[in-house]
Amino acid sequence: VSFPRITGVMPPMITPFLENGDVDLEGFAENVRKWNKTGLAGYLVNGSNSETAYLTEDEKIELLRLTVKNAGEGRHVMAGTGMESTRETIRFTNRCARLGAQSALVLTPCYYGSSMTSAALVEFFTRVADASEIPVLIYNVPKFTHVNIKADAVAALSKHPNIMGMKDSTGDVPQLTSFLNASAGQDFQIMVGTASAWYPALAIGIRAAILALANCHPDECDAVIKAFDAGSMERSREIYKTMFPVNTAVTATYGIAGLKAACDRKGYTGGFVRSPLLNSTPDERLAVEKIIADAERRLLATA
Amino acid sequence: VSFPRITGVMPPMITPFLENGDVDLEGFAENVRKWNKTGLAGYLVNGSNSETAYLTEDEKIELLRLTVKNAGEGRHVMAGTGMESTRETIRFTNRCARLGAQSALVLTPCYYGSSMTSAALVEFFTRVADASEIPVLIYNVPKFTHVNIKADAVAALSKHPNIMGMKDSTGDVPQLTSFLNASAGQDFQIMVGTASAWYPALAIGIRAAILALANCHPDECDAVIKAFDAGSMERSREIYKTMFPVNTAVTATYGIAGLKAACDRKGYTGGFVRSPLLNSTPDERLAVEKIIADAERRLLATA
Amino acid sequence: VSFPRITGVMPPMITPFLENGDVDLEGFAENVRKWNKTGLAGYLVNGSNSETAYLTEDEKIELLRLTVKNAGEGRHVMAGTGMESTRETIRFTNRCARLGAQSALVLTPCYYGSSMTSAALVEFFTRVADASEIPVLIYNVPKFTHVNIKADAVAALSKHPNIMGMKDSTGDVPQLTSFLNASAGQDFQIMVGTASAWYPALAIGIRAAILALANCHPDECDAVIKAFDAGSMERSREIYKTMFPVNTAVTATYGIAGLKAACDRKGYTGGFVRSPLLNSTPDERLAVEKIIADAERRLLATA
Amino acid sequence: VSFPRITGVMPPMITPFLENGDVDLEGFAENVRKWNKTGLAGYLVNGSNSETAYLTEDEKIELLRLTVKNAGEGRHVMAGTGMESTRETIRFTNRCARLGAQSALVLTPCYYGSSMTSAALVEFFTRVADASEIPVLIYNVPKFTHVNIKADAVAALSKHPNIMGMKDSTGDVPQLTSFLNASAGQDFQIMVGTASAWYPALAIGIRAAILALANCHPDECDAVIKAFDAGSMERSREIYKTMFPVNTAVTATYGIAGLKAACDRKGYTGGFVRSPLLNSTPDERLAVEKIIADAERRLLATA
Repeated sequence: VSFPRITGVMPPMITPFLENGDVDLEGFAENVRKWNKTGLAGYLVNGSNSETAYLTEDEKIELLRLTVKNAGEGRHVMAGTGMESTRETIRFTNRCARLGAQSALVLTPCYYGSSMTSAALVEFFTRVADASEIPVLIYNVPKFTHVNIKADAVAALSKHPNIMGMKDSTGDVPQLTSFLNASAGQDFQIMVGTASAWYPALAIGIRAAILALANCHPDECDAVIKAFDAGSMERSREIYKTMFPVNTAVTATYGIAGLKAACDRKGYTGGFVRSPLLNSTPDERLAVEKIIADAERRLLATA
Repeated sequence: VSFPRITGVMPPMITPFLENGDVDLEGFAENVRKWNKTGLAGYLVNGSNSETAYLTEDEKIELLRLTVKNAGEGRHVMAGTGMESTRETIRFTNRCARLGAQSALVLTPCYYGSSMTSAALVEFFTRVADASEIPVLIYNVPKFTHVNIKADAVAALSKHPNIMGMKDSTGDVPQLTSFLNASAGQDFQIMVGTASAWYPALAIGIRAAILALANCHPDECDAVIKAFDAGSMERSREIYKTMFPVNTAVTATYGIAGLKAACDRKGYTGGFVRSPLLNSTPDERLAVEKIIADAERRLLATA
Repeated sequence: VSFPRITGVMPPMITPFLENGDVDLEGFAENVRKWNKTGLAGYLVNGSNSETAYLTEDEKIELLRLTVKNAGEGRHVMAGTGMESTRETIRFTNRCARLGAQSALVLTPCYYGSSMTSAALVEFFTRVADASEIPVLIYNVPKFTHVNIKADAVAALSKHPNIMGMKDSTGDVPQLTSFLNASAGQDFQIMVGTASAWYPALAIGIRAAILALANCHPDECDAVIKAFDAGSMERSREIYKTMFPVNTAVTATYGIAGLKAACDRKGYTGGFVRSPLLNSTPDERLAVEKIIADAERRLLATA
Repeated sequence: VSFPRITGVMPPMITPFLENGDVDLEGFAENVRKWNKTGLAGYLVNGSNSETAYLTEDEKIELLRLTVKNAGEGRHVMAGTGMESTRETIRFTNRCARLGAQSALVLTPCYYGSSMTSAALVEFFTRVADASEIPVLIYNVPKFTHVNIKADAVAALSKHPNIMGMKDSTGDVPQLTSFLNASAGQDFQIMVGTASAWYPALAIGIRAAILALANCHPDECDAVIKAFDAGSMERSREIYKTMFPVNTAVTATYGIAGLKAACDRKGYTGGFVRSPLLNSTPDERLAVEKIIADAERRLLATA
């Protein structure tokens, strides 16, 4: 039995909220239908950019159902299913499996961060993968978890028959290389988790990405790998470098609220963030829009 | 209307688990009944040392019920009620209020840590305190959350009529001083959250503590403030310094598993940790027991 | 043979510069003569607040000569003598010894920080102390060095017959306690290196301090220990808490330039900083002066 | 007037010491003569891997003289000339210029790290470049300095007519991209400062590197760019990935002592480190040698 093979870009889908804080289910479903018209390889539902930390289990389930229902044919549906405890992660992963998730992206537990040694993480992911009805991917995102999985743990876990890969969101290209080396020879797909490293990741041999930027600029993210695979490394790198400031704006500088402003600007439903996140101010929205306009102008000029 | 006044020490109660991973409810209740025989000022249920990150809401509720039912007269019952989202924190806080919690200890949200600015935290705690049916305390524990609330936010929140104080677990005494200065003149109780700073905290005017060490050594923790209030600063400091290595062992060095080993050793029910935490090895248990024996011998020698 | 005993406060003396960047030797000497009229226990020349990193060896020597010449009777003269290499540290320490320094404050080497393990630091300080003609103190200041000496190294070094103590500038009171425990029974004087922890340090049994704040407010720093030793803990704490914001201003917020502005304001010669440090703007000087005025008003009001 | 153009790899040359701690000048000169037989583009003398922090000015000058004297024709000679103060940096830079250094690599000042804002760094490098008789490169190495220059400062400094580029040793490829974007359109050469990012740096358009690994494996480092420029990206990447563990060993894991062990193994004079660095143990030397042997075997197998 072999794993589904993911090539290309998936968005960690934003969750639009209404002003009263409820999930905007219609806006969400419409986003998926719009993304279906692009070259995206699939969808990650309930990832970090989905404000999953603020969602109840019922809401997460509803978003997964809508994703499965609306995703275009051939699009991979991956669900974020990590919880802090091993038993809850297994339970929720299998609940998502039965609703149609094709793979599970499982966050490194992080609250007791100094206890999350390689030994603890290897045991955690092994138990989860042993029990999961769908293939599991490790989700490494120290920016949020302050836990950074080590190459020795990746080496051990890459051998597990139900662990299909990992998403590394550090943007640390030497670390990606060390993970590639650690899992060499295994059926293990490493996905890069930030557009700030998308082109360099391709250059070192990575084939897939889950990118916040793909929410608002799916075509541009996709064009990086399309140009690369067509042998136009120059153009691939040009698009990457041109979109770099947009990515910085919708992640590091303005956060999820900024990403939602960008989505609104690009014809998707960004909507409100959920408290305690704060919505963008009008000035912040303008700043995001200007950065987008500048990048798009440069992309056209160099096309 | 005035807040309940807490003077002395409360344990952030451990949650004993059975080998199969279920909560040992009987062990937990028995612990409370044993602690009732000490000078502890009250109980914190569902704190960090309770492995709360690994508990389901049903389990948290059951632990709160057992605490309310078993707590001796005059002992304050505080419940950890923080969730990542504002709306869930409010809902769960009021659920706990109705079950008998006298105050709510609310963790700083932390997943989107770089977005947890003073503005965001002030809005979060204000909304929670506005809606809460019981007094609220801010819970600041960067060791786990990687968020460290600033003095300007404490200054603003200390004025809220339903925020009774905070627990600061950094052990950073200059920071405690800055919080005392920031909240000067307000009805705002600052509790220190680590035995590594218990005596210095008393020296700068703090009156209460929530200490992991109080799970296994409630009398020694209590003796620090009792001696201090009796004017025996020398003895108070001596107990503090003697217990210091035990505290290091059951927190920084051996974590919650080590704390549970210490509880087992002292006649309480420590029990198993829940996965992905790893249980102590026999060598680690011996090391903890030796450190305890050394400290107890020195305490006797200097008494 | 026993070590000189230091009780009370020493300033890590600022080095005033002229606008052209030369050392203002006259201003420096005059500062020492003014400080002689206060209760300061001695002087540290060529410490971090002296902008020593920017001084040539000739300049350091000249400042030491002026200190030895101008220091009032009974005032301890300590010289910062740390260099990155062991051999240079020994050479320079003994050069300072011959010019009249009574003790040497030796910085932890730090450029190759990850190599500065306990083993490396124990060997470094042992070699230096073996060869030094004057008693040696360890200088631990992670804020500048990003190296934080561990309790095991302190335990080993506290036994050396030519190491008289250490200055710990972290402000980490639990760490100070661990150092007190580690050196218990040895002739080893621990000095606190920040006014943000001066009163708590006294409370745990420390007897001396080297405080940036003592450059501009020597009497207030001295009053904290004087009141403490007179049994007026309340007043000691009051002065500490009142001066706390001034200390924050002249260290964390406005740095050495801010400290110099405060010195100018208090009748000492602050002077210019040396490039690449930037001088205070007029607004920054006003902010420092306002914080000082507020604190002095409160001190009077509570006296 | 235009800058010398550097394409390819330069070693930050190690400084071999004798057992008594003196510089092994003969060993050093012989190393240069051996490296002349490789494809190295030039030499960096008095960089971080030269243990420059432990060298006196006389020793640095002697090493520069030997480099100038022994460097093969067409090899660029760059000298590390950074000091903490602006005035000393200028003086020493020009002293090196007169002895034949073709460019100066100037470290970001770092002791007062929190004061090293973009404004301070821009002023520092501008003053140094204004006064320097040779072109200046910015040296950014947060691993040692804990200062990380920001893109806005790089943007400003890249316009200076006497700043020819920078060495960035973070290995942070997204940051390298941001620096490329910030200096776009300027005559500004960005050199990567770690072999862990050599191939990805080439992929994003960087043309030169200063690599610790080039001390012991100059040919392999050079082969990465040679293969790349020949259009064999696959082979370039293969060499990079194969040498990756060797680089980790001689930097992060075993430090400069490990790098020297590797140099000894490869026929260069590694020699002793200077105290307070500790020499490699026999076990550590064996570990380094095994990692080298494994990599060399794999390189051959895939050639």
